[in-house]
Amino acid sequence: MKNKIKVRASASIANISCGFDCLGLSIKEPYDEVTLEFNNSKKLSITVSGKKSSLIPVNPEKNTAGKAILSFLHSIGEKKGLNIHIKKGIPPGSGIGSSASSAAAAVFGINELFGNPYKLEKLIFHGMAGEEVASGSFHADNIAPAILGGIRLIRSYEPLEILNLPIPKKLMCVVVLPDFSINTYDARNMLPKRVPLKSAVEQAGNLAGFTIALYQENYELMQRSMVDLFAEPVRGKLIPGYKKIQNLLKKENVIGCGISGSGPAIFALANDIDVSKKIKTLIINEFKKIGIDSIGYISKVQTLPPQII
Amino acid sequence: MKNKIKVRASASIANISCGFDCLGLSIKEPYDEVTLEFNNSKKLSITVSGKKSSLIPVNPEKNTAGKAILSFLHSIGEKKGLNIHIKKGIPPGSGIGSSASSAAAAVFGINELFGNPYKLEKLIFHGMAGEEVASGSFHADNIAPAILGGIRLIRSYEPLEILNLPIPKKLMCVVVLPDFSINTYDARNMLPKRVPLKSAVEQAGNLAGFTIALYQENYELMQRSMVDLFAEPVRGKLIPGYKKIQNLLKKENVIGCGISGSGPAIFALANDIDVSKKIKTLIINEFKKIGIDSIGYISKVQTLPPQII
Repeated sequence: MKNKIKVRASASIANISCGFDCLGLSIKEPYDEVTLEFNNSKKLSITVSGKKSSLIPVNPEKNTAGKAILSFLHSIGEKKGLNIHIKKGIPPGSGIGSSASSAAAAVFGINELFGNPYKLEKLIFHGMAGEEVASGSFHADNIAPAILGGIRLIRSYEPLEILNLPIPKKLMCVVVLPDFSINTYDARNMLPKRVPLKSAVEQAGNLAGFTIALYQENYELMQRSMVDLFAEPVRGKLIPGYKKIQNLLKKENVIGCGISGSGPAIFALANDIDVSKKIKTLIINEFKKIGIDSIGYISKVQTLPPQII
Repeated sequence: MKNKIKVRASASIANISCGFDCLGLSIKEPYDEVTLEFNNSKKLSITVSGKKSSLIPVNPEKNTAGKAILSFLHSIGEKKGLNIHIKKGIPPGSGIGSSASSAAAAVFGINELFGNPYKLEKLIFHGMAGEEVASGSFHADNIAPAILGGIRLIRSYEPLEILNLPIPKKLMCVVVLPDFSINTYDARNMLPKRVPLKSAVEQAGNLAGFTIALYQENYELMQRSMVDLFAEPVRGKLIPGYKKIQNLLKKENVIGCGISGSGPAIFALANDIDVSKKIKTLIINEFKKIGIDSIGYISKVQTLPPQII
């Protein structure tokens, strides 16, 4: 049995506009790195470094990586002590699956240390236990792509069923993270508990349309389908300049754009590197105009699970 | 210019459980036949024969075929008189797109008589005008498959966009029509105006899951995805014996079953002719036990548009 492991897990874009709470994709960067090392106690000892690491709780019950590992250990009936170091490449509260990334790296690593008792799909459940600490809800649209890679549909939560979606060859993802946080818990509580039936039909039609578009590699259909009637109307108001940025992006040749997860990160999909660079700069400049620093990333879909490094 | 035409258009199964108001498929039988013949008046004169034809209004403004033709004539700026005869093979109010079938045959026929000024997709709008007379709502989940054939997703109503879905090779459709009517208008008014966000997410996930299943020809995934959280909980109560029949069908090897459109027709999908025959008999027998006559049909998906006969 190995004693120590270091794992990198990617950020992710949840919702992708039309798939609120049931669609997510993994991107290549940014990422978190989690180091696990057995110690002689029966306890988890957590340290954190990197971006906004002071915001991350180190109590294992309140830390997403810690809680995910506790869930894993509980399920295999082990009470091992571990030193856990989390190096944050993804700022917490940014909307690109920061907590999911730490949880994914943690459960992938602990599974490796124990000789892989679980398949990747089975790790999602433990990752969700970690996610719940951060968001107050049991959801999988970040953790599933963070653990499995690719574009993933959560068809059902009870029982949990994750489906793989095709990745159009030219697809590129742009994310820009403005330098302020939105609390995932608050962002969720803002949402309406009920939605008009008409909106529910439209959202479902768009999610199915997006699914067809991925199979057909039809970027125009992706574009028409990327509409969010559930979260964006509420959460868009939390992001200064959002409406203007969205309108500017629509004039560029983007496939679609929206709020990544619960925000404030803004994402866009494109099928061209020059367009991707242009819109990344555009968003950063718009935030700068209203006094908000931001950082942007361009990446293809990450098709791989977390990596041992 | 031809003076007379006779067109046959198929019944259809709307909703298919997980696709309330945005999914429908065409079946080979039963069907309606509509005969159109120019007369020397400027008026439409409608006669109806066949199943429950006494229930069909003959006022062109209130008749689905009449209204669809009026919409078509208005759009091309013509004021022709027509004798319209509708032979009902599909009883009205049965839930398998009776009004859509008449409207589809009518607009297909009138388009032919005028030398096909419109493509099939463009006829859907006029068919919907006919549908609106019967249901009080502007929907396309029967008329789109009735005009285009196949399995169709209505991704968007404004603007109208109909997407084609793959048809798994072995797919068979069973419909059983109990001998009573449900008024489509009433069945629609019973529905909740708002639904829980959680249900909307689940329904969207299932519709996307069903879409993936069609692409993958994955009957097990189709089965898991065929759940209706919107209409069935309300409309199931209008059909005596529905719950029992559904439970019995689930024990058979069906892919899925539910209420066709607004009912009372019950439909099931299967991938085997013997299973199809068995479940058709099972449903008919269950209705018989509670004193309700019914008639059943087994058919593959109708891939063709309306046929000139």
